[in-house]
Amino acid sequence: MKIGKATIPRTAICTSDEHTIVVRGADLCKDLIGRISFTDYFHLLVTGRRPDAAATAVLDATLVAIAEHGFVPSVQAARMTLAAAPDALQGAVAAGLLGCGSVILGASETAGRLFAQIHDAATAQGMDIDSAALAVLRRYAAQGMAIPGYGHPLHKERDPRVARLFEVARACGSSLAYVDIAEAVERQIPAVIGKSLKLNVSAAIPAVLLGAGFPLQALRGVPLLARTAGLIAHLTEEFQQAAGFALSYQATRELQYDGVVPAGFGEPKS
Amino acid sequence: MKIGKATIPRTAICTSDEHTIVVRGADLCKDLIGRISFTDYFHLLVTGRRPDAAATAVLDATLVAIAEHGFVPSVQAARMTLAAAPDALQGAVAAGLLGCGSVILGASETAGRLFAQIHDAATAQGMDIDSAALAVLRRYAAQGMAIPGYGHPLHKERDPRVARLFEVARACGSSLAYVDIAEAVERQIPAVIGKSLKLNVSAAIPAVLLGAGFPLQALRGVPLLARTAGLIAHLTEEFQQAAGFALSYQATRELQYDGVVPAGFGEPKS
Amino acid sequence: MKIGKATIPRTAICTSDEHTIVVRGADLCKDLIGRISFTDYFHLLVTGRRPDAAATAVLDATLVAIAEHGFVPSVQAARMTLAAAPDALQGAVAAGLLGCGSVILGASETAGRLFAQIHDAATAQGMDIDSAALAVLRRYAAQGMAIPGYGHPLHKERDPRVARLFEVARACGSSLAYVDIAEAVERQIPAVIGKSLKLNVSAAIPAVLLGAGFPLQALRGVPLLARTAGLIAHLTEEFQQAAGFALSYQATRELQYDGVVPAGFGEPKS
Amino acid sequence: MKIGKATIPRTAICTSDEHTIVVRGADLCKDLIGRISFTDYFHLLVTGRRPDAAATAVLDATLVAIAEHGFVPSVQAARMTLAAAPDALQGAVAAGLLGCGSVILGASETAGRLFAQIHDAATAQGMDIDSAALAVLRRYAAQGMAIPGYGHPLHKERDPRVARLFEVARACGSSLAYVDIAEAVERQIPAVIGKSLKLNVSAAIPAVLLGAGFPLQALRGVPLLARTAGLIAHLTEEFQQAAGFALSYQATRELQYDGVVPAGFGEPKS
Repeated sequence: MKIGKATIPRTAICTSDEHTIVVRGADLCKDLIGRISFTDYFHLLVTGRRPDAAATAVLDATLVAIAEHGFVPSVQAARMTLAAAPDALQGAVAAGLLGCGSVILGASETAGRLFAQIHDAATAQGMDIDSAALAVLRRYAAQGMAIPGYGHPLHKERDPRVARLFEVARACGSSLAYVDIAEAVERQIPAVIGKSLKLNVSAAIPAVLLGAGFPLQALRGVPLLARTAGLIAHLTEEFQQAAGFALSYQATRELQYDGVVPAGFGEPKS
Repeated sequence: MKIGKATIPRTAICTSDEHTIVVRGADLCKDLIGRISFTDYFHLLVTGRRPDAAATAVLDATLVAIAEHGFVPSVQAARMTLAAAPDALQGAVAAGLLGCGSVILGASETAGRLFAQIHDAATAQGMDIDSAALAVLRRYAAQGMAIPGYGHPLHKERDPRVARLFEVARACGSSLAYVDIAEAVERQIPAVIGKSLKLNVSAAIPAVLLGAGFPLQALRGVPLLARTAGLIAHLTEEFQQAAGFALSYQATRELQYDGVVPAGFGEPKS
Repeated sequence: MKIGKATIPRTAICTSDEHTIVVRGADLCKDLIGRISFTDYFHLLVTGRRPDAAATAVLDATLVAIAEHGFVPSVQAARMTLAAAPDALQGAVAAGLLGCGSVILGASETAGRLFAQIHDAATAQGMDIDSAALAVLRRYAAQGMAIPGYGHPLHKERDPRVARLFEVARACGSSLAYVDIAEAVERQIPAVIGKSLKLNVSAAIPAVLLGAGFPLQALRGVPLLARTAGLIAHLTEEFQQAAGFALSYQATRELQYDGVVPAGFGEPKS
Repeated sequence: MKIGKATIPRTAICTSDEHTIVVRGADLCKDLIGRISFTDYFHLLVTGRRPDAAATAVLDATLVAIAEHGFVPSVQAARMTLAAAPDALQGAVAAGLLGCGSVILGASETAGRLFAQIHDAATAQGMDIDSAALAVLRRYAAQGMAIPGYGHPLHKERDPRVARLFEVARACGSSLAYVDIAEAVERQIPAVIGKSLKLNVSAAIPAVLLGAGFPLQALRGVPLLARTAGLIAHLTEEFQQAAGFALSYQATRELQYDGVVPAGFGEPKS
């Protein structure tokens, strides 16, 4: 069908011959296994660069912050799936990851895009970040777009993970440029939407990662990798102490059917 | 429906109140974020215990060894899926993980079960590991079961990752008990199946992890977590330099249709 | 790498040229669209043959019987997934299908294999089906294998769908050979396991489908296709009237944490 | 956490008591199994209404039109997944469905939204459909949005399935209101984008389904259900005649690695 270059697949991640597996330019066996942590290897795989010490510290901190938060919907989906299909652990992990979409974990990426726009606006137009944040937020409001990474259904204060992630970034000497932007957004939100919304963990993650040089395009990969670790822990527990069907049972104890029923339905059979 | 304890879900992984998220007994913000690597956190999440230095070294080494090996089928499936559904990164990761089943990455777990049986047989009956290996392999052969983790379609020698993983385990002082069992299996295979099959990476992973105290039940989680990192790298590259549809195009260049066709099919329209 | 025939993919399902799409030997536009029902097309796609009227009736009946049964775990998983990732309907359907594994819907296939073994044993050895059923069930028991498709956690009577499916098969003149085998199994179970277990819908489906000539190898596809229809209905309802997060909330109302907590956890902050 | 109505899940699809399963108000065993085709049951499940004869004809035609088109990327992904994880058929189906996203099959839904906007604009403002189509297309162009369902990488003519679907709708007496809109869009495209783009099957499907009263919100479910049937056919063939690994092998025969390699890589070992 199509002819030409676009039909030849290319990659810069990995190649191998009979003796050597090359990943991002390094010999996997000689240079990587036993010499690099999994976190640094993830950074190398995704970006092509090894992280400096600050980038390692920040990436580890975000992965730890977001890996686990109890029986969230995606964990419930994964445990129910394993209970129903125990031979296919990979299917239960996949079911859990499928719930890591725009509403839940995807906000890390969309908040990152918001911060990048503010950064670019401030740089291009020589504005201070509060003015740039206000301008970009007004554009979001005009287009009816939600502000990703701010507010929480319950907490009026910031999620405690936010302060801790900012502390880690500060302590390891990572750039705080996007932390400053994230806080400028928090300050300007009341002027745009008429009420205060505090930074949540989905905004704190891109704020520290972008400062550490992690690419915008790969931001959503961080919560996905982190949640895989949490899902594997839950599925290991599910094999030992099943909860999947119990969750399903509990979930429907107050279920209400609001459709019609045939005549005689629910009456005792005589 | 069902009444009683089994319908109350339980967990020992995570709980939280308004101020504190508790994971495996520790305060996530105070004790974990910024204080523990992602690898150690994965170990803590799955096992409830923090790893010692040797267990960290071995777990990192196995995660790095298995994360990436080029355009394997699951990577191709993931990249084609992202090309067709670019709005749903989580779907492309899930598609890739769904190919981490019994044939490909599941061998880590089944090889681990083989080694555990040999270990238990040797311990219970006071046998040396070669005799125990021979006895268990004969049972596998009698039941028509394949020996997981040995042999490779191309390589007659061992995969180079095997030696490197064993070297890491030795260097960090981790127990080599299961490495010894894995090598006893390699020695006894010719007596059982009549030809030599060398240890591959799917046997080396459980050999070093079981020695480091990683639980048998969680073995399959290691390649799943590792491959998630590789998949995210490939999907990040796919956004920048698309290969998914090119792979699909190339895959079918020599496709042969061996069904019937209607009269006139393939003839030029006049 | 590998050379030779096995590396050339082949298919007998579909081919096309610029003007014509050929499916199973027929011109899709001229011969199929508008001329064949989706049920018959599914049969043609899977088997290469158009069903006769009895096979259509039986296949429709099984698809209708198994498509929907309320908020079962896979439906809950799908609705939670859509709530968390509403942009990716395909991901929510996939999450639901991932729970159609060995424990839940896979029993249709494994029960079909049981019936086929009994059929073959009876044919090969000239036994009546009760004797063949008894012999095969004893082998299952000796190997510690569960008998798939019999018994129900609640009902001591047969599931009402069983009688209805058998009635449909009888009314349309489909072969009842495997219905007879399924009932022979029901009669022989007490002699093997010491108590009565009634036929459930997972055994009734292969009993009628095998009689109608549907291939054993494709049996598991029937509940998967059927459930896709039910999942799409639930996900359409989820868009209109959200239940996913409510299910997740309800599921954990009685959740018990049985791990340790740090000192001071759960006490009011002063 | 949240209290109140929103935390009680509700549904109008299915309920049951010990004797009766009720689906959309009907008794599953008495009124549906053996009395309704799977296509009509799908319509009932999704919409709450039984289709009239025209709606059945149109829905069958669209399901048949879109179920199968050879080794498309999602079929390749599914077959590779089954080859790697043959124990989990549901995982391979799920992997295939995950590629039914915005680029490939999602266009049915987005084209449907386009037609609905034109219909509403024409109705609300008393415009003829060509003027309404032009106005809406100009809005799409102004916002940089692609026009979904028109054009094809290869064909300059219409996909042959388009004419056939329109013919079926006409023959069964279904409303052609949205077919007329779809053709008005085709006529107005040159005025907006400066070149001609022909209707493809992703626009024809919503054109006929909306006319038959199928709800906009459920449009994407039609290709998902249809493709599940095609995927099951391919996966059944994969069990009989494996192609998954051959596809993967072929896909990378011309793969180019454009990253760096360590010194000595690819040279013969002495």
